[in-house]
Amino acid sequence: MKEQGEKYVSSTQISKQINIDASQIAKDLSYLHVSGRTRVGYEVDALIEELEHFLGFTDMHKAFLFGVGSLGDALLRDSGLHHFGLEIVGAFDVKPELVGRVVNGVPVYHSDEFEEKMKTCGVNIGVLTVPINIAQEITDKMVAGGIKAVWNFTPFRIRVPEYIVVQNTSLYAHLALMFNRLNERIQKI
Amino acid sequence: MKEQGEKYVSSTQISKQINIDASQIAKDLSYLHVSGRTRVGYEVDALIEELEHFLGFTDMHKAFLFGVGSLGDALLRDSGLHHFGLEIVGAFDVKPELVGRVVNGVPVYHSDEFEEKMKTCGVNIGVLTVPINIAQEITDKMVAGGIKAVWNFTPFRIRVPEYIVVQNTSLYAHLALMFNRLNERIQKI
Repeated sequence: MKEQGEKYVSSTQISKQINIDASQIAKDLSYLHVSGRTRVGYEVDALIEELEHFLGFTDMHKAFLFGVGSLGDALLRDSGLHHFGLEIVGAFDVKPELVGRVVNGVPVYHSDEFEEKMKTCGVNIGVLTVPINIAQEITDKMVAGGIKAVWNFTPFRIRVPEYIVVQNTSLYAHLALMFNRLNERIQKI
Repeated sequence: MKEQGEKYVSSTQISKQINIDASQIAKDLSYLHVSGRTRVGYEVDALIEELEHFLGFTDMHKAFLFGVGSLGDALLRDSGLHHFGLEIVGAFDVKPELVGRVVNGVPVYHSDEFEEKMKTCGVNIGVLTVPINIAQEITDKMVAGGIKAVWNFTPFRIRVPEYIVVQNTSLYAHLALMFNRLNERIQKI
């Protein structure tokens, strides 16, 4: 709407665009430091700024990525992550053919170098894309090194101390779920 | 465990490995056509076969990908998807510099060619990685063309007829969630 030159937007308009109840939108937006005006709505510029700030997209969050396999490599190449505030400043692996390489501007270090790199890089977030059988071991290493949040792309349920944030995003679990629901539908027809 | 030469596995052993209650595991596995033997457990080979079948990982599911931007390109390069049963047989975009290219073995067609390709390819699944402002439009096109399931990587809540399966996997929404929780923790300390 900003691109279209709109100055104001109402919760009803947002509702139509993103297919969520207008009352829910008004309720959600009440958590922000913006207030809508009756019959006019929210100021578009202020709303964007407040939302991006609230969602953490304006600050850059530095991260390390662990495991430069197929998925790890794909994430290193996804510039969308950077756009939304995640800056992967280094990756770790043990494979000799990967260590020393630079993928989309991100250097790949040997896993043994992690503790040393933690000291200088100011990193809070670890992206976990290792094979499932070492997921816990690498998580333990991350936490011991000072990582505060783990973005877990493995289907493994990692164990962490209470003060560590875990965000699970298992593409392959979602894939299985989709296949299952699709098969059910097809069998019904 | 198969790699380690184990012939049998108990729900207690699985429980320790994946950090889920043994009783829940036994309950879940009761949906499969395998039965554990008291004090011995499940036969490893049979369990793997049944699980892979149940999860839909043994059959290949053909898919088209819509939107060869940064994330779309990354997914085309992730061989993990193929390993778990998703075969992307074609991608669609409108950008002249992309159309005609082949990414990791997958041809990129112009979006206008979609209907024609649907006739010959036997595809049920559409992977949605387009910009948010055309997410609904492209979804409508997919459904009209005969797509049965949409794997939606956009944060947009797409609307589809009741008989269509939608699987939402918004990496950037997960990212926002993680940032938010991380900021809360850091402020507490």
